[in-house]
Amino acid sequence: MSIDELISRNRSFVAHPGSPTPALRVAVVTCMDCRIDIYRALGLEPGEAHVIRNAGGRARDALRSLLVSQRKLGTREVMLITHTGCGMASFENAEFQEELGTDIDFETFESPEQAAADDAAWLREHPLILEDTTVRAFVYDVKTGAVTEQGGPSD
Amino acid sequence: MSIDELISRNRSFVAHPGSPTPALRVAVVTCMDCRIDIYRALGLEPGEAHVIRNAGGRARDALRSLLVSQRKLGTREVMLITHTGCGMASFENAEFQEELGTDIDFETFESPEQAAADDAAWLREHPLILEDTTVRAFVYDVKTGAVTEQGGPSD
Repeated sequence: MSIDELISRNRSFVAHPGSPTPALRVAVVTCMDCRIDIYRALGLEPGEAHVIRNAGGRARDALRSLLVSQRKLGTREVMLITHTGCGMASFENAEFQEELGTDIDFETFESPEQAAADDAAWLREHPLILEDTTVRAFVYDVKTGAVTEQGGPSD
Repeated sequence: MSIDELISRNRSFVAHPGSPTPALRVAVVTCMDCRIDIYRALGLEPGEAHVIRNAGGRARDALRSLLVSQRKLGTREVMLITHTGCGMASFENAEFQEELGTDIDFETFESPEQAAADDAAWLREHPLILEDTTVRAFVYDVKTGAVTEQGGPSD
């Protein structure tokens, strides 16, 4: 069982205790994709940023977490990161809903550039996101590891 | 702006291209907490597992992602990891809802042990989660970095 292997690897890990408040006041939202080690990719140290991950790195799915992040733990910047080669661009929402018999919106998309830009616009306009929030959209290239900004910063 | 610092750090990062299919067939669900570098904590290598993160590391919030993970990318084990010192145990859902004027369920909890166990039970019974799925619940100790299983494996 693969989880046993992960438990075994955890035995040699030692964490450094720290504050739950993200020092950089940033919340990163990105995809669950197995190729993306976001701490390494952004040079993140433990304690610096919230990391929210879901299928596609979508903002609507992250809203509950972002509200907690902003109101309870003081983050004021959101870094949305979709990526090239994302599985969410490889199937149709309606077909998958029919296959499963569910009305869950799987938030598929055609273009990671467009998805990140659309989600950034949606978040900037959301009435519950704090007005002084900076929201910026990026695409991560799974072949190189580079993040490229979509459009300019919001503020 | 903190995101500029992260963009700068990304410039020296080089990814290793790989398959989008998680080699260990595991999906890890954990909290967005800034102290948890889950790749390091579990000794995860890029390409091994999906990583889903949200406020609290809750399963309901992860369902959309888990369905994609299982049906589109072949994972068959779910490792749910809540943690000690979680902010989601520090406020009341109803109060926060009233403060924001929203009916979003923030999925707060009193005990990370109970939250992980409850979520594992909920996932095991969920009709859309594949029957041959192993779901296991853990609590991560933010002071030591150790994960401790709650109850036994499911299958």
